[in-house]
Amino acid sequence: MNNRFLLTVNLFFFLCLKIGAQHQVPIPTPAQLQWQNAELAALVCWDMHVFDGEFYVQKEVRITPVEDYNTFNPENYDMDQWIKAIRDAGFKIAIFTVSHETGFFFHQSNATPYSMKALSWQDGKGDILRDFKASCEKYGILPGVYIGTRWNAYYGIHDFKVQGDSEFSRNRQAYYNRTIEKIVEEIFANYGEWAMVWFDGGAHGPEQGGPDVLSVFEKYQPNGLFYHNLQRADIRWGGSETGTVPYPSWGTFPYRAIGAGESAKKEIGANNFQLLKKGDPDGVYYMPAMSDAPLRGKGGHDWFWEPNREHTIYPLDDLVNMYYNSVGYNTTLIMGLTPDPEGLLPQPDVKRLKEFGDEINRRFSNPIASTSGAGKTINLKLLERQIINQVVVMEDISQGERVRTFELEGKTSKGWRTIFKGSVIGHKFIHVFDDIEVTRMRLVIKSAIGTPKIKKIEVHKN
Amino acid sequence: MNNRFLLTVNLFFFLCLKIGAQHQVPIPTPAQLQWQNAELAALVCWDMHVFDGEFYVQKEVRITPVEDYNTFNPENYDMDQWIKAIRDAGFKIAIFTVSHETGFFFHQSNATPYSMKALSWQDGKGDILRDFKASCEKYGILPGVYIGTRWNAYYGIHDFKVQGDSEFSRNRQAYYNRTIEKIVEEIFANYGEWAMVWFDGGAHGPEQGGPDVLSVFEKYQPNGLFYHNLQRADIRWGGSETGTVPYPSWGTFPYRAIGAGESAKKEIGANNFQLLKKGDPDGVYYMPAMSDAPLRGKGGHDWFWEPNREHTIYPLDDLVNMYYNSVGYNTTLIMGLTPDPEGLLPQPDVKRLKEFGDEINRRFSNPIASTSGAGKTINLKLLERQIINQVVVMEDISQGERVRTFELEGKTSKGWRTIFKGSVIGHKFIHVFDDIEVTRMRLVIKSAIGTPKIKKIEVHKN
Repeated sequence: MNNRFLLTVNLFFFLCLKIGAQHQVPIPTPAQLQWQNAELAALVCWDMHVFDGEFYVQKEVRITPVEDYNTFNPENYDMDQWIKAIRDAGFKIAIFTVSHETGFFFHQSNATPYSMKALSWQDGKGDILRDFKASCEKYGILPGVYIGTRWNAYYGIHDFKVQGDSEFSRNRQAYYNRTIEKIVEEIFANYGEWAMVWFDGGAHGPEQGGPDVLSVFEKYQPNGLFYHNLQRADIRWGGSETGTVPYPSWGTFPYRAIGAGESAKKEIGANNFQLLKKGDPDGVYYMPAMSDAPLRGKGGHDWFWEPNREHTIYPLDDLVNMYYNSVGYNTTLIMGLTPDPEGLLPQPDVKRLKEFGDEINRRFSNPIASTSGAGKTINLKLLERQIINQVVVMEDISQGERVRTFELEGKTSKGWRTIFKGSVIGHKFIHVFDDIEVTRMRLVIKSAIGTPKIKKIEVHKN
Repeated sequence: MNNRFLLTVNLFFFLCLKIGAQHQVPIPTPAQLQWQNAELAALVCWDMHVFDGEFYVQKEVRITPVEDYNTFNPENYDMDQWIKAIRDAGFKIAIFTVSHETGFFFHQSNATPYSMKALSWQDGKGDILRDFKASCEKYGILPGVYIGTRWNAYYGIHDFKVQGDSEFSRNRQAYYNRTIEKIVEEIFANYGEWAMVWFDGGAHGPEQGGPDVLSVFEKYQPNGLFYHNLQRADIRWGGSETGTVPYPSWGTFPYRAIGAGESAKKEIGANNFQLLKKGDPDGVYYMPAMSDAPLRGKGGHDWFWEPNREHTIYPLDDLVNMYYNSVGYNTTLIMGLTPDPEGLLPQPDVKRLKEFGDEINRRFSNPIASTSGAGKTINLKLLERQIINQVVVMEDISQGERVRTFELEGKTSKGWRTIFKGSVIGHKFIHVFDDIEVTRMRLVIKSAIGTPKIKKIEVHKN
């Protein structure tokens, strides 16, 4: 073969790749796919200050070490009760705060003394993270872990940093960073697989004077979902803690991480986090938004249990609306739950969760009609003329968000009527509309990158 | 009885008291008396950095948290071996460093997680302080405890202080102070009586922004010996770490504490700590000096074990000289011992200690003659004319240091000869002199406050 032939072959393959690239959209990793398929995740929040009987003021707790860690003494502690409640409400993922801001770690550690060994409770042998993992397995829940490294009132860390700039401070910072690396190694190496790992507030890396947690994660959890630091974010915060995003919320994003670089930081902060909320259809990174909110968020915002706050539990209607505006808008809903000082998820919370799960189930488990397919138009024929007022559409996002614009149309006695004109479908799009009597529905994809693949379209009457 | 009679009686008693007061000197508490009677105390020094295999540089250790506390793993740990070695060498008191400067506490604590519970060693159930107390009881050794609160590399305390002056720093300082108060409560309340308590570098009190450890001490150890803070010092540092004091070293001191007030601070620091070394015969506080030195102090100054440093163990002659210049000069000798990372006092140290104890015993257990008595002149008659070269004199210091000046005289074939002219005797005064052949000795007290009480005068030939 001569060089000219090789050159021609190379050019041919280059052009093929280039053309292919023009028709491609970012696709999720298996971990991201699992994450979006889960739809409902519970963030189980616990920290030492839950036990002090005081109203939680985050600003204070960040700069005030816990007075007596042995006030942690949940006498009726029952991890199965937590996870069963989560399972019974239809959640697929549970994430546990192994640490938040007090600096205490809820696992058996040889890296930080301020952890389960220090406690009188269970004679220092307790391991809430181990129990959490075991219960998740028992109830078929995917386990995630939330790790706070940004604030540590015990060790004296404020926004990732030791105070001061003396040699002593620098040594303490280095020590803290190594300690965090050892702690995350324990969490990632000793407890099996984590479906997701959440570093509170992002994890500072070495380039910011912080620990290198990403390397530890990638070593021990190569298939996991990482959230997040300047190098990597497999999901993104949805820009509020309301449990909702606006429509459209694309699963793609223009930066590989949140706040990676000054231009990213500026753009992300702008206009009340619009970019986080909405994403970017042209973004080259697959990084779907999450919609997070505490269950105790009505007239309050209680991620952590506090006394006499049952009145802040969201009413069922609010939760259902939240579902439409999160899961229904292509994001995972993360609901904050918090066990009480007895060690149980409070009954009012369990009850509301169950009501929520039952209501979602009631609304969506019996579609009037359902189909799937690929191509520009997906037709759905009903068995008979029926009143409907909800439609659920899902793309096969394993192939990425291909649909760019679409219309939903219903065939009434007066012909085809447009029900909704939209852009992103993504993992799931739910639309609620006024009652309309139809015999058929159709999804007309106006523009797409590549062949649209519709995993499901179904209609409901609520 | 009429009023005039009562007045007369009162006046009589008042005058008696007044006259008595003029003849009084400060007298020791029972704890101080016990302390001085002990004469030989071992300070057993251990801290986490002993286990790191590195040469100990105090300045570095103070500002560098210990990398991995589970390097503490003394596999042949045998507390009885330590205390038996101390007992066999004739020591009467042992003091253990429950904490020094790393911040780690060698007891079972519910106040600081950075203590025995954190360790893998003995499955977190170990309690070196408990073992120490038990062994001391077994071998008839009076137990003391040394507590470091001034430096804490783990918690970030430098010279008693948290770094910085933010609200966070102030909260941390308050938290640290309360933590120390709880820790010392554990040590003082849970382990029975301590013959002495030694706060490293003095304990800052509330008036200096520190914890109130004195109140805790006085609550739980009302009969103990306290060393020291600005309010109280039952003994004083002897002004060097050579294991010696100069002569005279009075047991009395002009201030109730070391460094209590600016004038005291200034005076104490002057002239290489002369005031600490010598005390003050007119001091109104009984506060005898201690003479402290590490056994590994020849060509080094190793309070803490380090690898390959056996050559720094003092030769026997040096230790014997140290004895003369400490116990022989009215102070308690505190000798620093340090177990190795295996958990044993090293054999070379044990051997030298035993040689020291045996030599002191050989020199002083068989006096040629001995007597005691009260008054201006104490006569000691030998059974026969003999060569002597040492004399030991002890006041009954339960009555205070009454002797102000004295002469020791020996009756030779040529009449009375002056052997020594001195001032303080105190608990013990040993004088070594050239061989002299005598039939009698006498102690002539030239001046005293009150009646001199001589507990013992004995002569030796070495």
